Amino acid sequence: MNATTGTVLLTGFAPFGGETCNPSQDAVCALEGEVIEGRRVVTRCLPVEFGASLAALSEAIAEVRPELVLCVGQAGGRAQISLERIAINVDDARIPDNAGAQPVDTAIAEDGPAAYFASLPIKAMLAALRAEGIPAEISQTAGTFVCNHVFYGLMHALQNVPGVRGGFIHIPYSPAQAAHHPGAPSLPPTVATQALRLAIATALTVQHDVRLAAGATH
Amino acid sequence: MNATTGTVLLTGFAPFGGETCNPSQDAVCALEGEVIEGRRVVTRCLPVEFGASLAALSEAIAEVRPELVLCVGQAGGRAQISLERIAINVDDARIPDNAGAQPVDTAIAEDGPAAYFASLPIKAMLAALRAEGIPAEISQTAGTFVCNHVFYGLMHALQNVPGVRGGFIHIPYSPAQAAHHPGAPSLPPTVATQALRLAIATALTVQHDVRLAAGATH
Amino acid sequence: MNATTGTVLLTGFAPFGGETCNPSQDAVCALEGEVIEGRRVVTRCLPVEFGASLAALSEAIAEVRPELVLCVGQAGGRAQISLERIAINVDDARIPDNAGAQPVDTAIAEDGPAAYFASLPIKAMLAALRAEGIPAEISQTAGTFVCNHVFYGLMHALQNVPGVRGGFIHIPYSPAQAAHHPGAPSLPPTVATQALRLAIATALTVQHDVRLAAGATH
Amino acid sequence: MNATTGTVLLTGFAPFGGETCNPSQDAVCALEGEVIEGRRVVTRCLPVEFGASLAALSEAIAEVRPELVLCVGQAGGRAQISLERIAINVDDARIPDNAGAQPVDTAIAEDGPAAYFASLPIKAMLAALRAEGIPAEISQTAGTFVCNHVFYGLMHALQNVPGVRGGFIHIPYSPAQAAHHPGAPSLPPTVATQALRLAIATALTVQHDVRLAAGATH
Repeated sequence: MNATTGTVLLTGFAPFGGETCNPSQDAVCALEGEVIEGRRVVTRCLPVEFGASLAALSEAIAEVRPELVLCVGQAGGRAQISLERIAINVDDARIPDNAGAQPVDTAIAEDGPAAYFASLPIKAMLAALRAEGIPAEISQTAGTFVCNHVFYGLMHALQNVPGVRGGFIHIPYSPAQAAHHPGAPSLPPTVATQALRLAIATALTVQHDVRLAAGATH
Repeated sequence: MNATTGTVLLTGFAPFGGETCNPSQDAVCALEGEVIEGRRVVTRCLPVEFGASLAALSEAIAEVRPELVLCVGQAGGRAQISLERIAINVDDARIPDNAGAQPVDTAIAEDGPAAYFASLPIKAMLAALRAEGIPAEISQTAGTFVCNHVFYGLMHALQNVPGVRGGFIHIPYSPAQAAHHPGAPSLPPTVATQALRLAIATALTVQHDVRLAAGATH
Repeated sequence: MNATTGTVLLTGFAPFGGETCNPSQDAVCALEGEVIEGRRVVTRCLPVEFGASLAALSEAIAEVRPELVLCVGQAGGRAQISLERIAINVDDARIPDNAGAQPVDTAIAEDGPAAYFASLPIKAMLAALRAEGIPAEISQTAGTFVCNHVFYGLMHALQNVPGVRGGFIHIPYSPAQAAHHPGAPSLPPTVATQALRLAIATALTVQHDVRLAAGATH
Repeated sequence: MNATTGTVLLTGFAPFGGETCNPSQDAVCALEGEVIEGRRVVTRCLPVEFGASLAALSEAIAEVRPELVLCVGQAGGRAQISLERIAINVDDARIPDNAGAQPVDTAIAEDGPAAYFASLPIKAMLAALRAEGIPAEISQTAGTFVCNHVFYGLMHALQNVPGVRGGFIHIPYSPAQAAHHPGAPSLPPTVATQALRLAIATALTVQHDVRLAAGATH
């Protein structure tokens, strides 16, 4: 593990929905250039826009040629680090994106399947986070907004890039954001950064996921 | 609409998870034999068991030859009628099923795609329910337990039965159940029955779904 | 129980906060004139206004001369029938009342104590509701808006009327209201009416409350 | 503010309810000996026991002779720093305390009033926390377990100690605790410590509370 033998592409998002910052970007930034398990982390900030976000992601993948892509987004209202299990082939925007677009029940890829599973060992990642005292959970839905759009688009694109793994993590509001949302849960970006570091290390080193029940009855 | 020209298969579930009744079955029962939009409703109660539930469903489909299949399950903790958008190809049981099985990250159909969308006009159904004052929502996940198992298995089976539509609805605890779960939301089976009646009527009469934003940001 | 030997004053509230109905009033109305345990129920609808609500309540008490006063209000977002334990001596309005007033940290009775406990057997009432399959809970706070204002004012007034008992019950949104509040829990006014009937019967017949743990750790 | 002119008594609690640590004690510990606005902070860890907790608090007050007493407890499941408004005169334990006692509907002080308001400028404290990006809220109930027991006992005792102010703050689970409670919100003890520092500084310097709506409709 002396030499840097590859790269990890780690993306956050710009602020949206009236927020002035996005904790995903704050958490991601802090890992720029860091070497994890011998791979150098390259970070990007994606726009919260249907279409443009995926164009930026594609460009970054072409440029960075990563062996692992991890996209990170904000999930205001969720209390724990969410390791997303699956991306679905639909945009259904409850609010407009940052460019004013609000697609309803539109396919992300006309020719794509209904969904893609993340190709990361999410259960091993879950175990690693919890072992370090970081609150984490498996999520069965990444929603139908730009986060899911990017997640689905990523997995769709990776079908043509053998050997590259990808996935998505949602993180809660930062405490500073939650101060403006009465009752809302939060997690500091420093904790989120440590979670991402552990998640990347686990994704790089675990080939076969562990068996750990973390489903939902509904 | 004078003659009964077809059938609708409507299924509920047996009690599970320590409950002595299942509101899905109570809501479903009440519609046995009822004629909705010229079709006769035939009901079945499925076991809360991986595998056996799908066998029972297949048998019922073969026997009833429905033009529409609607499966209904209990979602303890949810507050509104949930119209499920998508079924995913994984069993991940947080608790054992009624036969003691607890699969973790097992595919439902080894050769199946990652997911199937419901083939019902769920947005029109949502609008119909709300118009009657029934609290309803689109759900982006049916979980990873027996409900999702049946929903996925149903959609997988219907791939070979052209023209038959299918979907899944989750309903809250009944008030009597919630009396044993401090703080839990509920909805009476009578309201759920009326919701199912409206959902079926809408599914039978609406061919092209309406455009109605009902997604989730995450 | 042959003769009607007394009266019960039961109050609901007018709609507020943008709603077009108030389920407390719907639930209360249905009991107008009903005889419960030999007492006739007289109902009133109070305005959602600081001050005016208490004036209307005082007038009703003077007119009806009840032996029991039960006030009922809407608690949008709560899932179960809430039997309120205590009223506190402060108005702190997050939103304006129906007359536009928005007091902040004002005492309800300048010379009153910090709080009054309900003088009803709330644990016996809780047990009675649950025994009938109605979801119910003890609440440790009635908030700081008009509901708590009326509850505190009632208990303050009853200090001068020996032998008359009083209390407050919060009920969830109706299903029709919840249809406009995505994800919100609800309970039909018919269930709430039955809850009120049972609560009144219990309050009239139980002198010494039962021992039943129903507190909150925080 | 050159000389230390007085002391602040700051208390946390021992672990309870199956936890191995209590974030209130972790947050409190970090301020031992710190000088805030010219006063030295003295900390104590109270047992989670009805009765014994108040005996320990009384002893500490007698020994430390503080001008301000702030007690801090864990509120597992709450998402923000909770500034408690009022303590009520009842113990109603949903679970046994650490000595196995489980009082139900017992008065804390037989001769005491139904409740005491905190004698701290909680709205100014709320504003100070939010201004620093710390998620905080006013809470209208401290529950009916040992936290409320200590809060009420404190305020009752302070009736006989003119000029000494007192109050209670609830803090969420730490992230390490939340890692064992799927879906539970958390806040790091370092954020809680900073919240306590700001709360104490505000309590020491603000005599007349600010006007800031922070109530609850129910």
